[in-house]
Amino acid sequence: MTGHIDARLAELGIVLPKSAAPVAAYVPSVVSGNLVFVSGQIPIRDGDILYKGRLGDGVTVEDGYQAARLCGLNLLAQVRDAVGDLDRVRRVVKLGGFVACVPEFSDHPKVINGASDLMIDVFGETGRHARFAVGAPSLPLGVAVEVDGVFEVLS
Amino acid sequence: MTGHIDARLAELGIVLPKSAAPVAAYVPSVVSGNLVFVSGQIPIRDGDILYKGRLGDGVTVEDGYQAARLCGLNLLAQVRDAVGDLDRVRRVVKLGGFVACVPEFSDHPKVINGASDLMIDVFGETGRHARFAVGAPSLPLGVAVEVDGVFEVLS
Amino acid sequence: MTGHIDARLAELGIVLPKSAAPVAAYVPSVVSGNLVFVSGQIPIRDGDILYKGRLGDGVTVEDGYQAARLCGLNLLAQVRDAVGDLDRVRRVVKLGGFVACVPEFSDHPKVINGASDLMIDVFGETGRHARFAVGAPSLPLGVAVEVDGVFEVLS
Repeated sequence: MTGHIDARLAELGIVLPKSAAPVAAYVPSVVSGNLVFVSGQIPIRDGDILYKGRLGDGVTVEDGYQAARLCGLNLLAQVRDAVGDLDRVRRVVKLGGFVACVPEFSDHPKVINGASDLMIDVFGETGRHARFAVGAPSLPLGVAVEVDGVFEVLS
Repeated sequence: MTGHIDARLAELGIVLPKSAAPVAAYVPSVVSGNLVFVSGQIPIRDGDILYKGRLGDGVTVEDGYQAARLCGLNLLAQVRDAVGDLDRVRRVVKLGGFVACVPEFSDHPKVINGASDLMIDVFGETGRHARFAVGAPSLPLGVAVEVDGVFEVLS
Repeated sequence: MTGHIDARLAELGIVLPKSAAPVAAYVPSVVSGNLVFVSGQIPIRDGDILYKGRLGDGVTVEDGYQAARLCGLNLLAQVRDAVGDLDRVRRVVKLGGFVACVPEFSDHPKVINGASDLMIDVFGETGRHARFAVGAPSLPLGVAVEVDGVFEVLS
């Protein structure tokens, strides 16, 4: 039997990436009470980093948007690993969005919308979340975007 | 009947800004259990962004302090929208402060104090919170400061 | 009677720093429900800041690792202050790692591992946490690393 959210993913033509192993000494997610804290995810699929570089220095807003969407897909893959089934997500609580960029860049919200729009596409109202979007001079492995998240799940 | 915190705001001569709509695809706050997660707020009042630029490059620490205070006012406006009455705030739990700055800048704490002092002015002991203060090469729409927050409320 | 974790600290030859007072208008930690939110900690011991500067501009990855480890020790000192005994820690939930660095730097994970490895050294499985590691153009007082944290404790 397919879950409701799995069916929605299929309807959207979305195949979640294989959840990526952490690039260092930590775990992809921790469940505490009803909250799942997911580690910062990068734009990686099947082991390949797809979006490197900085916004305002060769990486376009559209590329950044796609990078953030891929971070969002990786967040979902981690949540599914953590709780077994995305139908258990009661609310996307918060996303933290970091954009590698030059000092003149100011379109961070349009970039992180890639992850935000995905949550709403997949979960509908349940996907509406609080968030921040900020700049960074650089991010791990030279990626263009990193997004972490907090999700509320049924206990 | 005026709430205790509304009275305190009036005593301080503080009029909260109209809560600002998100600049992108997310919501201003999410309540999960006893916690309200508020999206990153920028120094905006009545639709006008008041503090742009970078600390150490034209924006003074005093301007940054005022920018952070305005972010704090916007946080309070969002919490009031979320739970209806600031008297329901049991604790300001955490603020996350981002300061747009040059690499040589090191007074991030003095800037983010604008938001921190506000919380203590308004709530007293209840307003004392954990926080971080860090730099960013740039922030959304070119603002000088962005602050997000977590608040504990009566359930 | 010595606690289990105190004994483990002694076994590792670790003496926690005296918990550092906040450098501004906030508190070192806030307990909300089962969660302890700890303010961003910097690499300070006995009042001396030990690691200043930026990664990729004079500060090596090994120095950054040690800086992050010292931030981690300060996190533990704050948690002990907050709940009285590190044996009450049920889980290290999340670390947020900020690395002062140049735009070309990409080894943020190796730096923040200094804090992550410490948690696993001290707590074992309980110490495995979610985290993010990102860059910043600069951090308070010119430090090289800042790390904040969320810990779950027995209520």
